[in-house]
Amino acid sequence: MYLENITCPQDVKKLDIKQLKVLCDEIRQYLLDVVLDNGGHLASNLGVVELTVALHYVFDDADKILWDVGHQSYVHKILTGRKDQLKTLRQKDGLSGFCCPSESEKDAFVSGHASNSVSAALGICQARDMQNQKFDVVSVIGDGALTGGMVYEALNNVNKKNMLVVLNDNNMSISKNVGNVSMTLSKLRLASGYNKFKYGMTKFLSAIPLVGKFIVKFFGAVKNFFKSLFGSNTFFSNFGIKYIGPFDGNNVKKMVKILKSIKKQLNRPILLHVVTKKGKGYAPAEQNPQDFHGVSPKNQDKKQYSFSSALGEELSLLAQQNDKICAVCAAMPSGTGIESFAKNHPDKFFDVGIAEQHAVTFSAGLAKNGMKPFVAVYSTFLQRAYDQILHDVCIDKLPVTFCIDRAGFVGQDGETHQGLFDLSYLGSMPNMTIIAPKDVNELKQALKFAIDFDAPLAIRYPKDCDVCFEQSQFEYAKWQYLLDNGGEISIFAVGPNCNKIAMQVAQNSQQKINVINASFVKPTDKKMLLSRINDKKWIVMEENQSSGGLGQNILSFVSQFKTKPQIKIVAVDDKFVRHSSIQEQLSENGFDMQQLKNMIE
Amino acid sequence: MYLENITCPQDVKKLDIKQLKVLCDEIRQYLLDVVLDNGGHLASNLGVVELTVALHYVFDDADKILWDVGHQSYVHKILTGRKDQLKTLRQKDGLSGFCCPSESEKDAFVSGHASNSVSAALGICQARDMQNQKFDVVSVIGDGALTGGMVYEALNNVNKKNMLVVLNDNNMSISKNVGNVSMTLSKLRLASGYNKFKYGMTKFLSAIPLVGKFIVKFFGAVKNFFKSLFGSNTFFSNFGIKYIGPFDGNNVKKMVKILKSIKKQLNRPILLHVVTKKGKGYAPAEQNPQDFHGVSPKNQDKKQYSFSSALGEELSLLAQQNDKICAVCAAMPSGTGIESFAKNHPDKFFDVGIAEQHAVTFSAGLAKNGMKPFVAVYSTFLQRAYDQILHDVCIDKLPVTFCIDRAGFVGQDGETHQGLFDLSYLGSMPNMTIIAPKDVNELKQALKFAIDFDAPLAIRYPKDCDVCFEQSQFEYAKWQYLLDNGGEISIFAVGPNCNKIAMQVAQNSQQKINVINASFVKPTDKKMLLSRINDKKWIVMEENQSSGGLGQNILSFVSQFKTKPQIKIVAVDDKFVRHSSIQEQLSENGFDMQQLKNMIE
Repeated sequence: MYLENITCPQDVKKLDIKQLKVLCDEIRQYLLDVVLDNGGHLASNLGVVELTVALHYVFDDADKILWDVGHQSYVHKILTGRKDQLKTLRQKDGLSGFCCPSESEKDAFVSGHASNSVSAALGICQARDMQNQKFDVVSVIGDGALTGGMVYEALNNVNKKNMLVVLNDNNMSISKNVGNVSMTLSKLRLASGYNKFKYGMTKFLSAIPLVGKFIVKFFGAVKNFFKSLFGSNTFFSNFGIKYIGPFDGNNVKKMVKILKSIKKQLNRPILLHVVTKKGKGYAPAEQNPQDFHGVSPKNQDKKQYSFSSALGEELSLLAQQNDKICAVCAAMPSGTGIESFAKNHPDKFFDVGIAEQHAVTFSAGLAKNGMKPFVAVYSTFLQRAYDQILHDVCIDKLPVTFCIDRAGFVGQDGETHQGLFDLSYLGSMPNMTIIAPKDVNELKQALKFAIDFDAPLAIRYPKDCDVCFEQSQFEYAKWQYLLDNGGEISIFAVGPNCNKIAMQVAQNSQQKINVINASFVKPTDKKMLLSRINDKKWIVMEENQSSGGLGQNILSFVSQFKTKPQIKIVAVDDKFVRHSSIQEQLSENGFDMQQLKNMIE
Repeated sequence: MYLENITCPQDVKKLDIKQLKVLCDEIRQYLLDVVLDNGGHLASNLGVVELTVALHYVFDDADKILWDVGHQSYVHKILTGRKDQLKTLRQKDGLSGFCCPSESEKDAFVSGHASNSVSAALGICQARDMQNQKFDVVSVIGDGALTGGMVYEALNNVNKKNMLVVLNDNNMSISKNVGNVSMTLSKLRLASGYNKFKYGMTKFLSAIPLVGKFIVKFFGAVKNFFKSLFGSNTFFSNFGIKYIGPFDGNNVKKMVKILKSIKKQLNRPILLHVVTKKGKGYAPAEQNPQDFHGVSPKNQDKKQYSFSSALGEELSLLAQQNDKICAVCAAMPSGTGIESFAKNHPDKFFDVGIAEQHAVTFSAGLAKNGMKPFVAVYSTFLQRAYDQILHDVCIDKLPVTFCIDRAGFVGQDGETHQGLFDLSYLGSMPNMTIIAPKDVNELKQALKFAIDFDAPLAIRYPKDCDVCFEQSQFEYAKWQYLLDNGGEISIFAVGPNCNKIAMQVAQNSQQKINVINASFVKPTDKKMLLSRINDKKWIVMEENQSSGGLGQNILSFVSQFKTKPQIKIVAVDDKFVRHSSIQEQLSENGFDMQQLKNMIE
């Protein structure tokens, strides 16, 4: 009724509070219709309907809103001219599932990875003030993102007027939130009765004969003394930002009132603490927000073999026989499949929050003192711990095993979440070994191999696949033929998709083509390479940027020889890969039978 | 008198408190003798003499002490069997300037980069408890490291007994400390009178007739209510760690007494706040701790041309004509040379603390809103912002310029500080351009070029060099001949050292050798490469890991051609490079005239 007339934030401002409430209901219904059908992030968006509507109601068109992570920005997209396009969400050429400045100028900053919004907002504010511009900057950040260290780096530097941080507290990351700060937030949540208590006490004390009023005054002085000593009594004021809250973020009337009041007070940076319900308004999601964090598209074929599940299951089994094994994850127990390990071995499992840096160095500490840690992490998020892998794990050659999920093309999550860099950044780290199993059985072999491997190890694989190859011997730095055709063309393939496509090409080509599973990306199998040095042509396939990948390292190795094959690399050529299906991403980047056949024939 | 008999911590334990004081004086004198002669970190070590002696006096041999950053670990090295070796500090085959487990098992964890020690300590504690071992773990961390986000990730997870964090607060990073947490620490420092005040007030209130005792009790209840609401009144208790302090860390008697008391209370994690004086006991260092943070060896030849100085000077000049220019650094205004810009343009300069992640994303925010930020940072520390460069800068193609100092071999700081990875990790990032100027004039040209370049840009260079080449045209993706000899051998050289050595080789060889300054590492100069595709041999020289470097990218480019030169890459071959002089590091890795001549002839 109202939603159909909303084309921009100005249309929202025309409504009255009662109409806003109806609008919120309509938006919620629209979200359910679209996301349950198309897939995407559901629970987080249901939770911020009222907050988003209120923000656009109160703040001006010139003001900027940054959505940390951005998976909760669907309502924002609906209100900023992208309502109908929402149906194209996460599809090729459709809307991104995150904030994307190239999609709309209303997406004020790139989002996807957690905890960056306060830093970005601070930069935007600083630039605004240096150019005498006038607008407010709001960053909306979940309580989960407070487990990420970068937020504290930003808070330590917060000093700008007309900057508002909205802490959207649903007491969840994707999974249950963890850690000491989470406890502190719980206490803040409980403190909503604090003001009432304070007034009651003052009244009570004042009533004491003779000295009562003096005591009230004295008590005030004591409180101020404490405040002056410790900045103030709240967590955030230690970081120099005024704390206001907590308030019910699912009450649009209250949100509008509070935001209006705050907009007038922004002569100093403010953090507004709002409590919202993840999955709000949709009972299944309210009850199991974790299950409705990400919803798969209705018509998506599930792939048969899940690497994530295989990790949790195999590591659980291995840990029954080896009491040194333990597992660490950064707020992704479910996505990485390590959840089942956590259930089977709760004492050996550590979820440290959205804190990849800590996850890696904590694991390095575990390894340094004799344990065998496995870090379950998405490729894209491990980027956040680059220095910790290099400095804390690799220099001292500590036996930390990285189980890197969502490596390669990731499909609908798009450019912020692609796992297309790990072979490059891990490959240039001394003391690092990299395995890319061709199927879930080989992942299990790699995990077994890891147990006795006394050095840093990365095992990288996609979420799932639809192939399972014949099992073969698993040896350090040894590749295997999937197909030994005796010809002079060889394909070296990394991971399940590449091996699958390579086999299709080999089986459908006029040429005799060998397919070699390059399971060890580092070190390469030099014996194998030497044995095929008289080939006419090599094709190296890897779901990774070409710079620093396996292909270039093979080129480097063979450059010492006079005669060598012509080498073609099928990899991502120095570009970001936007959202679409994995199949589309593979084809667009040359990973399909026809393009490979053209390359060969 | 005592120091000469100290060979291990047990020897320290034999002394009484008075003797400890003398020992401290002797250590301080020894530090001065060695470091003023050999070079190294001075002020930080002078500051922790008493703290280190007290720690080794109180804690047991089985206990582990982690030194965050590790530049303050010299006293620890002296007390743990490396007293005489201290004279070999930072020299080839001598002691490392940081904690180095491969040097001594008393160095419990790798150190070099800030803010990792609490994470590592927590991992060690967790592994200890899972294996039923008994020892305490102490991590000593400076207040400067509290500007690094990783510490908060760790604090958020702190939950182990027998774990002590010693906050060594000298109100400094290398330079003056920055930010809101620093203010909070100042308040904690002032609060040392707090206990006295509390007792005084209780006494006063109790003396009030009739209701005084009741009020005291009531006041206690109110205080507890506050405490329960907010965890407690101190900053750190929000992170679930008991705070004790502040105490005078330069008083060895007091330190021993407090540490003894704390060792008995470690049934929960404790943070001990000690205040020390950087440079303590050496007047010049006390007065100017920043100047005595790192001391150069007495006999070191200063190189003629400083890239760091050139950065500060040139950017200052450019900013006079362009009011969009601003500069950001992460606690290294002096080392990066950006200090002079800060003096000339204080309103356009931002030191964000040891917070590289924030530095990068804050700069991305500045760029997003129309400013032209230059991030001055060491190559090794930029590693800590890998994901922020990729996710926050490169995806949206924001015009942030990275001025990357200490790229390539860095000499005495050794393996934790080498700048040997940036070409690899930046090279695989889409939308990134990389320039490696051959001399300071070319750095200035690159900075001018940066002004109008509307995309992410990295300029990487060493601290200084002793060459200055003839100036040439500076164009995007265009290399220049330093020597066009018309022969069939070409050297493509990255940066001043490589260009210098290449010229030496060319001028001293029987062969006709061309020297090409490969100033743009990304994108490469494809025209130049094509024009020389009929050469017999190419040598690519780069102070970087070979994986993902320029050499491999050149190999990749020419792999499409049938005829092409033989290509040799002179780079670091998948290894960490330990401390020694830059000259030694160059030679060890093939960067010298003789080895290159052998390669050619």
